[in-house]
Amino acid sequence: MYGAEIEWIAVDWGTSNLRAWIIGADGAVLQRLTSDKGMSQLQRNEFEPTLTSLVQPFIKGERRVPVIVCGMAGARQGWVEAPYETAPCTPPGIGTALPLSIRSAPLEVRILPGVKQDSPADVMRGEETQIAGILAADPRFDGVICLPGTHTKWVQISAGEIVSFRTFMTGELFALLSRQSVLRHSVGGDGWDGDAFLAAVRDGMARPQALASSLFGLRAESLISDLAPDAARARLSGLLIGAELQAARPYWLGQDVRLVGAESLCRQYAEALSAEGLSVSVAGAEDMTLAGLAAARRALEEMQA
Amino acid sequence: MYGAEIEWIAVDWGTSNLRAWIIGADGAVLQRLTSDKGMSQLQRNEFEPTLTSLVQPFIKGERRVPVIVCGMAGARQGWVEAPYETAPCTPPGIGTALPLSIRSAPLEVRILPGVKQDSPADVMRGEETQIAGILAADPRFDGVICLPGTHTKWVQISAGEIVSFRTFMTGELFALLSRQSVLRHSVGGDGWDGDAFLAAVRDGMARPQALASSLFGLRAESLISDLAPDAARARLSGLLIGAELQAARPYWLGQDVRLVGAESLCRQYAEALSAEGLSVSVAGAEDMTLAGLAAARRALEEMQA
Repeated sequence: MYGAEIEWIAVDWGTSNLRAWIIGADGAVLQRLTSDKGMSQLQRNEFEPTLTSLVQPFIKGERRVPVIVCGMAGARQGWVEAPYETAPCTPPGIGTALPLSIRSAPLEVRILPGVKQDSPADVMRGEETQIAGILAADPRFDGVICLPGTHTKWVQISAGEIVSFRTFMTGELFALLSRQSVLRHSVGGDGWDGDAFLAAVRDGMARPQALASSLFGLRAESLISDLAPDAARARLSGLLIGAELQAARPYWLGQDVRLVGAESLCRQYAEALSAEGLSVSVAGAEDMTLAGLAAARRALEEMQA
Repeated sequence: MYGAEIEWIAVDWGTSNLRAWIIGADGAVLQRLTSDKGMSQLQRNEFEPTLTSLVQPFIKGERRVPVIVCGMAGARQGWVEAPYETAPCTPPGIGTALPLSIRSAPLEVRILPGVKQDSPADVMRGEETQIAGILAADPRFDGVICLPGTHTKWVQISAGEIVSFRTFMTGELFALLSRQSVLRHSVGGDGWDGDAFLAAVRDGMARPQALASSLFGLRAESLISDLAPDAARARLSGLLIGAELQAARPYWLGQDVRLVGAESLCRQYAEALSAEGLSVSVAGAEDMTLAGLAAARRALEEMQA
């Protein structure tokens, strides 16, 4: 593997993690690297040494290897700020990427910008590259993409543009509530009760205002009627996703939805949306990130040809 | 003060804190003691030594001093379980308190039970004693009590009974979101913007389903349009309280509301409810706890007379 020719390096630098893919001449992934040195762990001057030490073993010779980066490395608190493009816009490509001069290794780094929306105020960094990945495979895609995660995004795509989007803190709320709130005593383990989940989605959609009391109800039921942790965990997720779906209804009503995200979380969204009669397809988050970065790489080659 | 005759000791033993009041023969508070040894810090066998070492300096002679305890010390994970009374019921008084035998000091400890509700499932421990305090001062009180806090309670009182109640995790959500979520970067300091608060209450009431996206909007506005931390903090609280008020509407619509809680939090609820045209009165949480424990003490004296 070390003998294979390295063509370029794809990087997804998020808040918590750094992921890099060493890509060969034929587009094959020669090596997949991960590190917990996410943006939140790093001072500004630590980004360059972190990246170079991660990829150094794979660099040979003098040729500057192109590195294309998406994610929080381009945030104001990141490596260097790659200012947001403003929606409606196409997913930012190589033309608006920010070039960096690297001294410590023969790398040619470019950071892709995120996208902002002025009203209602919203931002994304990283998801725009997954959207670019979807559009690279299906340039005529027109419809709705939902990217479940810590900060779930609902995105309206038309004529190749991000028309509008909306972020929900659903995943972060689930993490905080299941690990750090009084509910942590009631939702232990990683079991799952699918029927309880779907019932809670319906409840969350019907009475989103009751969320803060429905949540405490999980604790009360576990105290006074031995609610099973599997059911409590599934209902916690269902209540949060249900409220989100109620608010995101203008995005998905009467639409097919493309889901991009982690498999188990996408499965929850798929079940909830299918129960509303929608047709849903799922794409892996990492696959779409890599496809979006590869599209930027192809555009770079064309620019330089 | 050490010379004054000690009549009894009032104790509020919560999840995070232990508070005790040394009460003299004339009902005067001789000493107010606090400790961070809340229920969550203690093993079962640590409750007795924690209490006795706190109050020991004030105990003289052989007479067993009555100690009346409310709060989480009576939970299953507490000192000893004082099983819940079931609503509808009067606030549990001394008649249903659990007597404990204490070996290490001349104390006669009784723990007041909490109250549960079977459907919708809900529980309280501590608030029932504050309610007893309100009813001790105003036995004919009929209406709605709201007890803002980590787990805010809305309680319907009629004919001296807790008829029904509902708990909202609003305060815990505010604490988690303002300290541990991505919003911590946007809501720093302890400033306050009253107009932003009331606008957010209206928004939270009108669109409770959008909570998880309105919350992320605070982060986005601070990134792209320099939202002031004071405004962000007030809006975070307003969005959460607004959603709660929408769900608690059956409790407060057309009612006067008695608020019991910490002063600054009660002020927020009072402003939000006043904007809905309600008449609101406020009582201090500690005063009501002490009044409720004193009512239990009087009942004990009558039983023993």
